[in-house]
Amino acid sequence: MSSPLKVAIAGLGNVGVGVIKILEQHKKLIADRAGREIFITTVCAQNRAADRGIDISAYVWAEDVRKISDSDDVDIVVELIGGEGGVAFDIAKNTLNNSKSLVTANKAMIAHHGAQLAELAQKNNVALRFEAAVAGGIPIIKVVGEGLAGNALNLVYGIMNGTTNYMLSQMESRGLTYREILIETEELGYLEADPSLDLDGIDAAHKLAILSSVAFGTKTDFDNVYVEGIRNIETIDIECAQELGYRVKLLGITEYDKGFLSQRVHPAMIDRDLPIAGVMDGFNALVVDGDFIDRTFYQGRGAGEGPTASAVVADLIDIARGYTRPAFFKPASKLTQAKAVSISERKGAYYVRFLIEDDTAVLADIKLHLKSVSIGVETMLKKTTDRDGTIYVILVTNIITETTLKDVLNRINKLSSVLEEPLSIRIEKL
Amino acid sequence: MSSPLKVAIAGLGNVGVGVIKILEQHKKLIADRAGREIFITTVCAQNRAADRGIDISAYVWAEDVRKISDSDDVDIVVELIGGEGGVAFDIAKNTLNNSKSLVTANKAMIAHHGAQLAELAQKNNVALRFEAAVAGGIPIIKVVGEGLAGNALNLVYGIMNGTTNYMLSQMESRGLTYREILIETEELGYLEADPSLDLDGIDAAHKLAILSSVAFGTKTDFDNVYVEGIRNIETIDIECAQELGYRVKLLGITEYDKGFLSQRVHPAMIDRDLPIAGVMDGFNALVVDGDFIDRTFYQGRGAGEGPTASAVVADLIDIARGYTRPAFFKPASKLTQAKAVSISERKGAYYVRFLIEDDTAVLADIKLHLKSVSIGVETMLKKTTDRDGTIYVILVTNIITETTLKDVLNRINKLSSVLEEPLSIRIEKL
Repeated sequence: MSSPLKVAIAGLGNVGVGVIKILEQHKKLIADRAGREIFITTVCAQNRAADRGIDISAYVWAEDVRKISDSDDVDIVVELIGGEGGVAFDIAKNTLNNSKSLVTANKAMIAHHGAQLAELAQKNNVALRFEAAVAGGIPIIKVVGEGLAGNALNLVYGIMNGTTNYMLSQMESRGLTYREILIETEELGYLEADPSLDLDGIDAAHKLAILSSVAFGTKTDFDNVYVEGIRNIETIDIECAQELGYRVKLLGITEYDKGFLSQRVHPAMIDRDLPIAGVMDGFNALVVDGDFIDRTFYQGRGAGEGPTASAVVADLIDIARGYTRPAFFKPASKLTQAKAVSISERKGAYYVRFLIEDDTAVLADIKLHLKSVSIGVETMLKKTTDRDGTIYVILVTNIITETTLKDVLNRINKLSSVLEEPLSIRIEKL
Repeated sequence: MSSPLKVAIAGLGNVGVGVIKILEQHKKLIADRAGREIFITTVCAQNRAADRGIDISAYVWAEDVRKISDSDDVDIVVELIGGEGGVAFDIAKNTLNNSKSLVTANKAMIAHHGAQLAELAQKNNVALRFEAAVAGGIPIIKVVGEGLAGNALNLVYGIMNGTTNYMLSQMESRGLTYREILIETEELGYLEADPSLDLDGIDAAHKLAILSSVAFGTKTDFDNVYVEGIRNIETIDIECAQELGYRVKLLGITEYDKGFLSQRVHPAMIDRDLPIAGVMDGFNALVVDGDFIDRTFYQGRGAGEGPTASAVVADLIDIARGYTRPAFFKPASKLTQAKAVSISERKGAYYVRFLIEDDTAVLADIKLHLKSVSIGVETMLKKTTDRDGTIYVILVTNIITETTLKDVLNRINKLSSVLEEPLSIRIEKL
């Protein structure tokens, strides 16, 4: 058995504590599997004295977290502080520049600086690993970049944020309004410190940007991910989805075709019969399409102490085993710059919800507007509201381009009898 | 970029042809991912002249397949001949003894001789890989042994044979009898050359034995897998399952607890709401439970040229990348010998189907027998048959031990008014 792998952990939130628990509880199992011992020598966090429910007195406390990789007692750094830049990014760069490997759960940092860090890792001949950054309980990065490496991939999509999936699931099963489930989710502590990361789809977009690079060998390009969250989804949409044979899910979808990359995160109506439509509450799920494997499907817990820590430890074991493949499964220099496909180019059907005065003339006017740009209406539902003299009209369009729809909805929104901005949800035939 | 990896392929059935197609079509993509070229130098099969739809004239034809690894132009052998022993086993041993790595899709050979071959690989410091042996389209061996390596695992189960899953699915969706779907499946060419491998659960049992070792670090122990196929499942059972909220699936289940290993393949009634119950037709699916990740779920095509060849190529890429972990993710010498738990120790509920004379006295007699060994009846259904004066009685028992049930069913079977051997299906609460 080779010499032990000496680990430093920067950041002792629940994931850091989870990593310590796994490495302690499964010490022997992991040594057998990794072919050598993996043990923690050094830790660091904002507050040394915080009660974490575990004893950290056996580890060296790094005085300067940015320099945690400097010690000879550290072979590898686990960065669990989070955040796109700042301390986390400094630790990452210092570690790799010190010719030591880095394992991180930091999706924002990898989404923004993945290509740069991959180059740094390659230059210093060390590993950069981030399995925990995407769907902790499912080893999806390993699956895509290793297990399916014989395939040309063209599509990866899925539910990448457990909190919003929980919210949408509860809205359906208990008939709650968005406001009601939001308050409950906040109270349960399920939301990120900055709730916008969950609610506005940014967390899912970080993960999607990483998955794109892993799947297609393109440079991480977070800026070109189209992002739209769930703040405008209401009980009425959940109910109408059901009536129409759909379910509303916040999906991340990345598609690659001959150098063109379309990356988007938004609520979508999908067939209720799809396996992914059945993924409820805090679970994540991913679908990967390859030219030789056809369609594959993966489901597990997306976050939480155990699943995320498990992914970190899997990366440590791989590195301990001596497996040093490139961060994005191709030499950093071979990652390509894809041409971004704008969301405005999307072609597909749409669910559109209008709140209007209950007057046939208004509806006729809306239909006239749609007809003027050749948008056909496949299905129409009328629903009562809690405001007298108003009505919800739900339309399902034929297949049209996004620009056409958005333009006409802007015009319709200006009609005085249209009482709120029309909401549209993309219908995805996946 | 390092020197190329020179591959020999032994066996040119559809998987072998698939491997050639992938390596040719994705030559550049794979070289980028693997960090070096992977190319085929040598091939061999039973019939050199067979029309395979691809041109193999550029490869050396090995005159003696058993010695295919002898050539200096071969770094690694892909064994795709199949069969537990014979030629395949000779090739495997020769290759490893020649200090060359072996990739195989041969589930029978690994299920029977996995531990022995792993030792041989370790002794010669080369890789032994068999991702393609289990659920080709899903990289489940990699997931379990690498992605979830930080977890102590205790349960893996799933649908591991696509052909029987197809048959059961078609029986349900089209109301076919077992005989009807059997003939159709034979005509479609979906059955293995020896149909017993599919129909009697042996193929699934091979895969289960491999998964047990990968998940629990135990020596492959095929002989202690309890195996029961689908030959006795009839339309009536599929229908009653539906009525009871269940679906019939041929499951492989392996459970490990402190040195005790329970491995079994048999038809099971499972809740229709489970994700795995929704896996229809030729798909495979697996559920893996770990102590830190909770439950994870994987679905994809189990067999076929593309998925199986994709798994072979993934193994080749790993090896080309220089990733040489032990075959079962632990040194061969550390694989343990688990104590086998007999199926007779199973505790659970059962679905039991009787064909009896339509006479209340007969049913009363059966109930008396059950009562005599304290078996309770939770639900009873009566169904007409196509034989006058007979009736199907379906009982769902309370939770009992397998031995108790089998003993009493033996006694009931001797009653003259019981017209065929009672059929029981285990109800699994998973």
